Amino acid sequence: LLQQSIITALIKISGDEKPFILTPWEHASGGGGLSGLIQNSTLFEQAGVNFSSVTGILPTEMSLKLLSVKKPLPFYATGVSLVIHPHSPHIPTTHANVRYLEVKDSDSGVITSWFGGGIDLTPYLLYEEDGFHFHHILREACNSHDETYYPRFKTWCDEYFFLPHRQETRGIGGIFFDYLGKEEANNQRQIDERLNNYGLFTLDIGKSFLPAYLPIVERNRNIPVSEKEREFQLSRRGRYVEFNLLYDRGTLFGLKTGGRVESILMSLPPLVKFSPLPIVPPNEKGEALLQVIKAPRSWI
Amino acid sequence: LLQQSIITALIKISGDEKPFILTPWEHASGGGGLSGLIQNSTLFEQAGVNFSSVTGILPTEMSLKLLSVKKPLPFYATGVSLVIHPHSPHIPTTHANVRYLEVKDSDSGVITSWFGGGIDLTPYLLYEEDGFHFHHILREACNSHDETYYPRFKTWCDEYFFLPHRQETRGIGGIFFDYLGKEEANNQRQIDERLNNYGLFTLDIGKSFLPAYLPIVERNRNIPVSEKEREFQLSRRGRYVEFNLLYDRGTLFGLKTGGRVESILMSLPPLVKFSPLPIVPPNEKGEALLQVIKAPRSWI
Repeated sequence: LLQQSIITALIKISGDEKPFILTPWEHASGGGGLSGLIQNSTLFEQAGVNFSSVTGILPTEMSLKLLSVKKPLPFYATGVSLVIHPHSPHIPTTHANVRYLEVKDSDSGVITSWFGGGIDLTPYLLYEEDGFHFHHILREACNSHDETYYPRFKTWCDEYFFLPHRQETRGIGGIFFDYLGKEEANNQRQIDERLNNYGLFTLDIGKSFLPAYLPIVERNRNIPVSEKEREFQLSRRGRYVEFNLLYDRGTLFGLKTGGRVESILMSLPPLVKFSPLPIVPPNEKGEALLQVIKAPRSWI
Repeated sequence: LLQQSIITALIKISGDEKPFILTPWEHASGGGGLSGLIQNSTLFEQAGVNFSSVTGILPTEMSLKLLSVKKPLPFYATGVSLVIHPHSPHIPTTHANVRYLEVKDSDSGVITSWFGGGIDLTPYLLYEEDGFHFHHILREACNSHDETYYPRFKTWCDEYFFLPHRQETRGIGGIFFDYLGKEEANNQRQIDERLNNYGLFTLDIGKSFLPAYLPIVERNRNIPVSEKEREFQLSRRGRYVEFNLLYDRGTLFGLKTGGRVESILMSLPPLVKFSPLPIVPPNEKGEALLQVIKAPRSWI
């Protein structure tokens, strides 16, 4: 449903008839999903909106990391994730994800489960009002559940989307959270309550994506693009690739648990430039971007 | 010296005056190197030839992997590595590397050291005679030292340059070897002899690069390029990026030990396309490539 509403809105804002290509798929070890892909619509060079609901076996290294148990464990994972790469460097790339994971200890039968998610923005040319708007909407969504959420999850996001070898963040952040509801509980009622709370919060975060992103698209869609601005975007996209393949836990989790490769790597930008030479910003908005990714700032 | 001779030959074959940009650099924790970079010469969209000689500290996880010792260990590493991305999809991308690594157990004072290296070819459109020639030269270089080397190192190469999530190899291989001379020895004379032998072999492999690659460049440089062939090359380059960032041990070693990012990531192709849709080969030579990377073959 979340997937559907987002797809519908993205088709509508592009204002043309370019349809999403919907591909249902099955997971090798159980379950499956529905991949939505748009390529070369008026606004979006590529947009992927995926739903998945799969079962499988966690490799030992992941069981160890997630539950400190040194054996392969059966898991159930479901979620919606999207990545949008617009044509225009004036419109930021964005990523959103909400997920639920359940891992069963096959010996004791104990099930551990939690929610995670996040929404973040990767501009190429920095329009400050976009950052303010984006973070403002995310803070509102957080605050309606718990006022400690936004500050915690904003910091978590800056820390998560960080490229150590570049000493920079992927973009201007947003929120990121994980392991919500993972704490041990004494009885089933407590577990249910906890998951219920965090589940509703996670769903609300998913719903906040459109109001956080669409006004930015509307505001910047008609700004003319220079060749230098486009070049800058293609080079900066290289850093997006570096982050996703070197560090992104979701990507590595998906590839290691036999997920659908095409859906997992849908996050990679459609056209990318790599060069060992420094990336030169085309103007002061590009320079501002290079500064803010070196030192994450407050957007409130 | 090896670096110099390769750079000179690459400039000469391009037949224009485009110089290499030579950048000397220092390593954060000791030593340094010299990076050679060419961009947009007549033949090469990008070529990087790097020399490095650095000292540093191996993170615990790497000490554990390399020496089964659970603590950070001081190391010394030196080598030459190159990656060439030609403009034309009729000329293969190639990679070559020779290296020497020395790790010291800071408690016992014992030094473990070894040689490694390899040369491999990544065509976009498969010209079988190129594969035959390339592997033939590498086999000759191996055979002049040990007739068991080529078969062992050819298989090692196919296994190393493999993308599990794609179930395909990066290209049509070549040779790959590591840990040569790492076995324990009883006395200094044995250690010296071993390193001497393997060192000479490794150097010979480095020298075999030009005769293995240049004739392929000469043979294919004048074949006209269609738009579909170029598109195919850009998409296939995406798999090159996937391998290098997800699996390549050299890349991850470099980034984790604080190496020079620009030199390490010089291997990434200058322009790349990613798409979740299948990559469609432009002709039967593209189809042949897609087949051979699914099932490595003999080239002798």
